[in-house]
Amino acid sequence: MRTYLDCVPCFIGQALDSARRRTDSPTIQEQLLREALTLASKLSFAKPPPIMGRLLHRRLRELTGQPDPYRTAKHKANQFALRLYPELKELVIQSEDPLGAAAKFAIAGNVIDLGVKTGLTQNDVRSSIQEAIEGHLEPEALEDFRQAVKSAGDILYLADNAGEIVFDCLLIEQMPPGSVTVAVKAGPIINDATREDAEAAGLTDLVEVIDSGDDAPGTVLDLCSPSFRRRFDAAHLVIAKGQGNYETLNECRHRNLFFLLKAKCGVIARDLGCRVGEMVVRRHETFAPHHTRNLGESLT
Amino acid sequence: MRTYLDCVPCFIGQALDSARRRTDSPTIQEQLLREALTLASKLSFAKPPPIMGRLLHRRLRELTGQPDPYRTAKHKANQFALRLYPELKELVIQSEDPLGAAAKFAIAGNVIDLGVKTGLTQNDVRSSIQEAIEGHLEPEALEDFRQAVKSAGDILYLADNAGEIVFDCLLIEQMPPGSVTVAVKAGPIINDATREDAEAAGLTDLVEVIDSGDDAPGTVLDLCSPSFRRRFDAAHLVIAKGQGNYETLNECRHRNLFFLLKAKCGVIARDLGCRVGEMVVRRHETFAPHHTRNLGESLT
Repeated sequence: MRTYLDCVPCFIGQALDSARRRTDSPTIQEQLLREALTLASKLSFAKPPPIMGRLLHRRLRELTGQPDPYRTAKHKANQFALRLYPELKELVIQSEDPLGAAAKFAIAGNVIDLGVKTGLTQNDVRSSIQEAIEGHLEPEALEDFRQAVKSAGDILYLADNAGEIVFDCLLIEQMPPGSVTVAVKAGPIINDATREDAEAAGLTDLVEVIDSGDDAPGTVLDLCSPSFRRRFDAAHLVIAKGQGNYETLNECRHRNLFFLLKAKCGVIARDLGCRVGEMVVRRHETFAPHHTRNLGESLT
Repeated sequence: MRTYLDCVPCFIGQALDSARRRTDSPTIQEQLLREALTLASKLSFAKPPPIMGRLLHRRLRELTGQPDPYRTAKHKANQFALRLYPELKELVIQSEDPLGAAAKFAIAGNVIDLGVKTGLTQNDVRSSIQEAIEGHLEPEALEDFRQAVKSAGDILYLADNAGEIVFDCLLIEQMPPGSVTVAVKAGPIINDATREDAEAAGLTDLVEVIDSGDDAPGTVLDLCSPSFRRRFDAAHLVIAKGQGNYETLNECRHRNLFFLLKAKCGVIARDLGCRVGEMVVRRHETFAPHHTRNLGESLT
């Protein structure tokens, strides 16, 4: 997906949040914000937002020498999600449709995205879970997803954020044992999950965890490691969590890929044709060039 | 008030809104957004946000040749407010405290600020009125304001936005006849009221209407005309409506000035020490340098 003009004010807000997590000095915060503005003024909008995010956060890292300003936030999110896990696990077990319930909770956990909402609270996460308990996934899409999971021998699950990956465990536990590999980011970027978070969430005890070989807050295949790309191409089924993965993979050529996410901003909701806040299970339609062009025109 | 770092993402959103009102061409919208990013990257944050707004919108005007992209929005706001006026006037007349009720409605109308909220709806305005009907102004501040109005022979009322000035009429009608002069902007900027809007609102039939001599979305005294500055300095009482006037006058030296506004963003709410959405009547404390410095440190 291209970067829409509406993404730009959001980038600048994200840069400011990151700057504040990196330093208490107003002077350096201001310098970092100015750098972000200059960077954004030269950005190619033809590329997906995570490419800009990657450039932006790399630049802020260079300037401050701090690799991981969201580390504390990620730790807190993991710990909070782990406290919620037993209750959610019980709800999944007691559900008439454990896979459907687990998919809803995995999607509910996608609210933990500090790239979209900087001031996220525990109450926001609780509200998202409550919406998942009361709400429904689109029945046909869920059924399609269920069949895809059932018939795939080799599932590659692209994780999104720290905290959220604890919720992902609930869904992965409903999949055939031994079938799933989870991919995390190779390095810290915003609050995206890395191997450290996968370990904290207990995912490494459950399945094989690999990394994408890159630190874009999404999956930019051209930047991923050759070994990751081989796994991606070979996977019978790819499950891509979150907005960043949707933004970077919605034009890819994988024939069996599902996006699971909460549509958290107007741009994504419009691109997906859903409401902001909606829980989405969407089978990937293999890239047709005219499709994207049309969407580009309608939004900008 | 200085420009806080939090103002910057908001500027960029405002530039995008203005770009979209100026052209349907995505290519030109993108150029205008890039211009705004470059401009913002070089901005002095020591100056109030309306200085940036003035520069930004002047640049967009230069690039597109369009003087007034918010004209239709301003017309709609005036017409909508005029439809609400009779009912609100009746509520003021029937109130036990007509001045207090009119002040609340004038402040409720300050919600019509397209610099803060681009997608404002009629329902937002109706909600703001309902909050005014149910809510209260700080009693001591209102009493202080009442006495100031009563004892001033010469009141200069600095209007803020189109539509809002219809609500201002309700308050001005409660002031001693012949005592009030209203100042509007000398040229179009965002949806700030100009003479055209004052005429549409019926203000020109009620009081003398002058302009500030400038088009900053606030009152930057150094940029205002000499005749306006004389009126400002000589006025027994200045009533300054809205965030832009607060941002530009909260360090001025006028000894008898009240700010009337709805605190619509976190930056202003924090600077004023109130909640976002709160209706504010605040007597201006004549500028003390240490006061502003402290506020600057706490927010950035």
